[in-house]
Amino acid sequence: MIEPLLPLLTLSGIAVFALSGALLAMQLNQTFVTASFFALLTGVGGGTIRDVMLDAPVFWLNDPLVAPVILLAALVAWVTPVRWWEGQLLEWADAAGLAAFSTLGAGKALAYGVEPVPAMILGVVTGCAGGMLRDMVAGVPSIMMRPDLYVTPSALAAVTAATLMLCGVDETLSLLAGSVVGFGLRGAALIWNLKLPAYSRTSKPDA
Amino acid sequence: MIEPLLPLLTLSGIAVFALSGALLAMQLNQTFVTASFFALLTGVGGGTIRDVMLDAPVFWLNDPLVAPVILLAALVAWVTPVRWWEGQLLEWADAAGLAAFSTLGAGKALAYGVEPVPAMILGVVTGCAGGMLRDMVAGVPSIMMRPDLYVTPSALAAVTAATLMLCGVDETLSLLAGSVVGFGLRGAALIWNLKLPAYSRTSKPDA
Amino acid sequence: MIEPLLPLLTLSGIAVFALSGALLAMQLNQTFVTASFFALLTGVGGGTIRDVMLDAPVFWLNDPLVAPVILLAALVAWVTPVRWWEGQLLEWADAAGLAAFSTLGAGKALAYGVEPVPAMILGVVTGCAGGMLRDMVAGVPSIMMRPDLYVTPSALAAVTAATLMLCGVDETLSLLAGSVVGFGLRGAALIWNLKLPAYSRTSKPDA
Repeated sequence: MIEPLLPLLTLSGIAVFALSGALLAMQLNQTFVTASFFALLTGVGGGTIRDVMLDAPVFWLNDPLVAPVILLAALVAWVTPVRWWEGQLLEWADAAGLAAFSTLGAGKALAYGVEPVPAMILGVVTGCAGGMLRDMVAGVPSIMMRPDLYVTPSALAAVTAATLMLCGVDETLSLLAGSVVGFGLRGAALIWNLKLPAYSRTSKPDA
Repeated sequence: MIEPLLPLLTLSGIAVFALSGALLAMQLNQTFVTASFFALLTGVGGGTIRDVMLDAPVFWLNDPLVAPVILLAALVAWVTPVRWWEGQLLEWADAAGLAAFSTLGAGKALAYGVEPVPAMILGVVTGCAGGMLRDMVAGVPSIMMRPDLYVTPSALAAVTAATLMLCGVDETLSLLAGSVVGFGLRGAALIWNLKLPAYSRTSKPDA
Repeated sequence: MIEPLLPLLTLSGIAVFALSGALLAMQLNQTFVTASFFALLTGVGGGTIRDVMLDAPVFWLNDPLVAPVILLAALVAWVTPVRWWEGQLLEWADAAGLAAFSTLGAGKALAYGVEPVPAMILGVVTGCAGGMLRDMVAGVPSIMMRPDLYVTPSALAAVTAATLMLCGVDETLSLLAGSVVGFGLRGAALIWNLKLPAYSRTSKPDA
């Protein structure tokens, strides 16, 4: 039943990621053209790296909608009042995109015959690489390095979806389950400010 | 009539980009080997990303000239007096390379059957990604984030060339027209210090 | 006689690179998930870029061992006392990985029909890109920019191996010779703190 909605959900996820890229560029007082480039990098960066590694056609090059939707997202970010985006709305939408892309990435990798563990890793790459590229070009601390849970929900989503699929569960159901648990964990991290324990050098004698 | 000159023009553009990479490494007091690596990254980075995304053979791997020309450019940067490169000469040459690569990238993407908007975007990627990679590895602020017009001339070149081609204009003429307007805008930005309006949060009530 | 050992040697090199990635993430007080991601980026980053550029299947996606070995390396880094890794042991292991990957990368490129100079460059990319990616995401100064010899031993290894192969020397012997000279130069740099002359702007009149 979710099948026909997939392209729409993917486009929504891309739009949300694009929005976050454009908003970062605007926070850094950039021009509209740069904001659009950031929107693109964030919106399709992860999926592009996934497709190139799978030797699959890069998904947005032959799609008449993805690139225009990204430019539209950049425009929306540019012309709307900043305070629209200052609450947690965007973080929740980003959580949904992160969970969806991580499961979709793992599913696509399995469909291309990739081994289980690398397929799960490709899911994480699909979910997180766009944000990583955005932060690297912007010169801000990488989303990978921030203390709140971000990669972990992505990994949970990818591992859940891939494991279910490998156990023979229906693909749509597996993707849905992975997205729900990934979104749930990221949401919990947003609400309760969850963190994984960071490494501290307690074992170092002179610390 | 420009057709037979294309390979020569491409090589010149690569040499200029390579020179800018080597000079940045030298400004940062690096060794010759690192300067050569920066020359390579800047000279072929954009075209490499384009070719990988198009699933085309990476253009410089089977070309006997490109890599040696890049190493030669690094050598020229290393042995010549710095003041040769301190005026605006290099920026003007870079402007020519930017305009040419942006149009060539868009044209190659269209030839590979990419949709119009993504093809224009690939043109911008071809023109700008080498400089972006150079700045990311060097740890200096990205060329994307500097206030002067850089991505915009690249986008103008790519959009002009792709639009003309899609309207049935002769390919060589389209590439030429795109390069001229892109070079013109980048040149105007250099002369009159043109900038696009940057985002300022005037809509934020408490700003 | 070395032939059957090659997969084992490659796995060891990947494990060492992965370890260096995980240890950097731990120094930056990251979580285990982020440390694993750094291990992955460092362990397979260079070979992934090489394979994508050669349009070869990305080597670790269809390998059941590489990804688990990387996660295991991250786990080992996490649970063992930090002081195990504080001496020069890791740097020597990294030197071995750098030399081996640089020669293997050049050899694979030649096997894919790449021109000599680009093949040597791809060897350097294979050896160095993982560490570059690790440093870019971490936001620490790039390994490319540090004063000690790192890219140069990689280049020496790749050039030696490729030159011997092109002269008709047996492939295994060529790879071995390249690895030995590369490891030797990197080791000499570690022992005697060797540096290439960095660029100084003595030719600038007002310096």
